[in-house]
This record gives sequence, structure tokens and C-alpha cells, in this order.
Amino acid sequence: MKDLFLMDNTIIELIGLTAGVVTSAGFLPQLFRGYKTKKLEDISYFMPIVLAIGMTLWFFYGFLLNAIAIMVANAFSVGCSLVLIFMKKIYS
Amino acid sequence: MKDLFLMDNTIIELIGLTAGVVTSAGFLPQLFRGYKTKKLEDISYFMPIVLAIGMTLWFFYGFLLNAIAIMVANAFSVGCSLVLIFMKKIYS
Repeated sequence: MKDLFLMDNTIIELIGLTAGVVTSAGFLPQLFRGYKTKKLEDISYFMPIVLAIGMTLWFFYGFLLNAIAIMVANAFSVGCSLVLIFMKKIYS
Repeated sequence: MKDLFLMDNTIIELIGLTAGVVTSAGFLPQLFRGYKTKKLEDISYFMPIVLAIGMTLWFFYGFLLNAIAIMVANAFSVGCSLVLIFMKKIYS
């Protein structure tokens, strides 16, 4: 089905890589805010826990499709989620 | 490179679909908690905003690769992020 599109794989992977960088960066402001305020009470534990499980599955999906963007982005995001869980535990 | 792996595309898409369901579900406990406590003060606005931008890019990536799992999961997650932003705005 890829042949239907005029874009080549390099451009698609570049979009994926940008998407990966942006979603990975999404967790950072939350970590900074939590670190600054030392308060993560309003965060549900289940959010980072469930996201980490899901993003580990995305990592394997990327691995099986050999899509580097998916692998790198999700590995980083899993790390951020685990840090968020750890921070909430410490601050509560 | 897909030929290196013994798994066929159906199984890979099934893993992607499971990953999509799990990551999408990850936002729900946060929405429920926010709805129940009416407090989302500790959540950084930038998290759902940046995640929504990134997941929109993932949506296009999935669109270009014709990967339904990536499209559905990210469309749902973008929706959840927007609801989270809206809820934080209302409750603050």
C-alpha cells in the first residue's frame, strides 16, 4: 500500500521522528513542574503505569516493523513515565 | 527488512492495536480522577498540549504508512488530551 503514496520512506520516517521527539518532549514539562512544585497529587498513578505498558508494546511494534522512530520515541517516553511514577511516590 | 522476522503482518498489527488500546486507555484514569476530584492543578498544561501536537504527527505517520493501529490510537489519545486541557481550564 505504500506505493499509493508519492512520499518516499525517508520523508515518512522524518515525520515519525519529529512525532517521536514531540511526544517524548511532552512528558518533560510535567517532570519539571513536578520537580519544581514537589506536588504530583492530582496525577493518577494509573496514567504513567498504563502508558508505560502501552508504550513498551509500541516499542516492540516499532522493533518488528524496524521503525527506528517508534522505538526511540517510546523507549524515551517509557523512561519519562517511570520517572514520573518514582517522583509521585517520593513526593507523596 | 520485514523479511528478517518470522511474524507476519497480521500479528504485528495486532501488537500495534493492543499497544494502541493500552496507551489510549492510559489517559482515561487521569480523566476520571480529574472529574472526581475536580482538581488538575498539578498537571502541566504543556504535557497534554505538546502530546496532542506529537500524537497528531503520529497520526499522519500512521496514515502515510497505512497503519490503522497508529491512526486509531493517536486519534483517540489526541481527543483525550484535548479533554484533559479543557477539564483543567474549567476546574482552575
